[in-house]
Amino acid sequence: MNTVADVVTTGGPHLAPLLARVEAHLAGLAADHGGALSDHAAATIAAGGKRLRPLLVLLAAGGADGEGLVRAAAAVELVHSATLVHDDVLDGADLRRGRPTVVATAGRAMATATGDLLFARAIGDLVRNGDADEVRVLSAASSALARGELLQRADAWDASITVERYLLRCELKTARLFEAACRLGALEGGADAATTDGIGRFGRRIGLAFQLLDDVLDVSGPAERTGKHRGTDLLDGTVTLPLLLARERDAALRAIDLRAVRTPAQAEALCDAIAATGALQDARRQALGIVAGAKADLPSELPAGQRRALDLVADGVVARYA
Amino acid sequence: MNTVADVVTTGGPHLAPLLARVEAHLAGLAADHGGALSDHAAATIAAGGKRLRPLLVLLAAGGADGEGLVRAAAAVELVHSATLVHDDVLDGADLRRGRPTVVATAGRAMATATGDLLFARAIGDLVRNGDADEVRVLSAASSALARGELLQRADAWDASITVERYLLRCELKTARLFEAACRLGALEGGADAATTDGIGRFGRRIGLAFQLLDDVLDVSGPAERTGKHRGTDLLDGTVTLPLLLARERDAALRAIDLRAVRTPAQAEALCDAIAATGALQDARRQALGIVAGAKADLPSELPAGQRRALDLVADGVVARYA
Repeated sequence: MNTVADVVTTGGPHLAPLLARVEAHLAGLAADHGGALSDHAAATIAAGGKRLRPLLVLLAAGGADGEGLVRAAAAVELVHSATLVHDDVLDGADLRRGRPTVVATAGRAMATATGDLLFARAIGDLVRNGDADEVRVLSAASSALARGELLQRADAWDASITVERYLLRCELKTARLFEAACRLGALEGGADAATTDGIGRFGRRIGLAFQLLDDVLDVSGPAERTGKHRGTDLLDGTVTLPLLLARERDAALRAIDLRAVRTPAQAEALCDAIAATGALQDARRQALGIVAGAKADLPSELPAGQRRALDLVADGVVARYA
Repeated sequence: MNTVADVVTTGGPHLAPLLARVEAHLAGLAADHGGALSDHAAATIAAGGKRLRPLLVLLAAGGADGEGLVRAAAAVELVHSATLVHDDVLDGADLRRGRPTVVATAGRAMATATGDLLFARAIGDLVRNGDADEVRVLSAASSALARGELLQRADAWDASITVERYLLRCELKTARLFEAACRLGALEGGADAATTDGIGRFGRRIGLAFQLLDDVLDVSGPAERTGKHRGTDLLDGTVTLPLLLARERDAALRAIDLRAVRTPAQAEALCDAIAATGALQDARRQALGIVAGAKADLPSELPAGQRRALDLVADGVVARYA
């Protein structure tokens, strides 16, 4: 299933040209630094991705289509890109979306500065909308992203963390930027405060489910779909919901020291042990419940077409797993 | 000479309590993340520094002393701190201001996220002032910082760069944040557009001279004052004005491949060779000229007390060298 294409078809004839304007705006921002400086930033943006967050911005805005909306959608994607560039530095990742990463091409220093530049440009461009609320929303989400990253590193290798702590990390790392995307769209669409809150809550829950299912995929594979070996998180010391739930069910798993899991083969064996407990179904059910709640609680005053498109995005998040 | 103390004495009785409020505000921001998350951010802020940039914000504001001014001064310092944390990651530095760096204490991942958090908090706090111009000024300076870092890495080991290219790097890396500090203060002080431009230009030139003199210090030493071996920049492949000017004067220096300079002893020998050409005096004179111009061009409508305090800051930048 191609979520973006389906949503664009369903969401209305204004969406495809709007998404094209977001792409053009992103390309313009990347080119705006003059000469060689922009190469890495431009390559990062051009490498693309699903553009799921900009799509949420556009959908949350209803039928709005002004320049401010395009800037907001681009800004969210820039913050997301900045995070990916920094994550790749920390993970020493060679490939992202099938292309060489900035850190692989240009080294840690250039990649760190490129991430900083993308982030600064996101805020610097959004502020042109002249709406302090919007800048507040995006910078709060950026703070949350950094705090989530800090939390993940602080908890590394610790399999005794609570599920609540894991969920907090997912909120910070992923859900808050989804929420910000929805809030920015709602603000640009002229929604009132209650509707903006409601759409924001939808985004937050969709983002949370997105992260949970991502973490399930890391354990379940298949590697052909994810582009990574199973158990990459485990090898990084990142403890996620499947392991936490599996430990509740299996004393042998509670006894495992994650630092002893060092090879891809050992990680795959641990993934199999986690799957054998039924923890993957549990985690997946939890994510599906979150998505169902998000859809059910969408503000009732939204037009049917907007609601249908947002529902489709929610379904698309789930369908990543199927 | 203690610049900050002298300026506080000269600049008026409102300055000392204002600086104390900036410190308290910084401490509050650092503590605002809850629990262990804030430790590294708080330690970074508490480690202090000269607080030269917040001081410029306060001085540029004339006699203003509102909460918005305190937030602006703190935001500039947070952006500066974020940059230092990332720089330390890239340099693998163990100590900064006599204390262990975040990267030494907590590793690259925590340090990268801490820098991101500090930056996001800077913008997130400043936006509370509700003035889009202020956010634009700070985010533009942040973009410039990142671009300066990119430029420095792109030009690493290349001793054939032009002086103009070196000056552009200094503008981006250092001068623009000094300019932003002055502009933010002027905006908070209610200055008109022409005066804001004039004070901003002063800040930019002071920042440029600051960087030039910093680069001279790296070659001249003494190590007891700078806390670093002489020639640290050379070992990092960072080509600065002293080497560029020395190469114009000495064919033997033009022939040197910087990559062959690998030990502190070799770097010190190269520093001696650079000094022998007279390039340090040249570079220093250039910086002094920039400072003199900055002082002379201060907007004539500034009150005498404010002008005197700004002059003192300019003199303090020069005195770092003496």
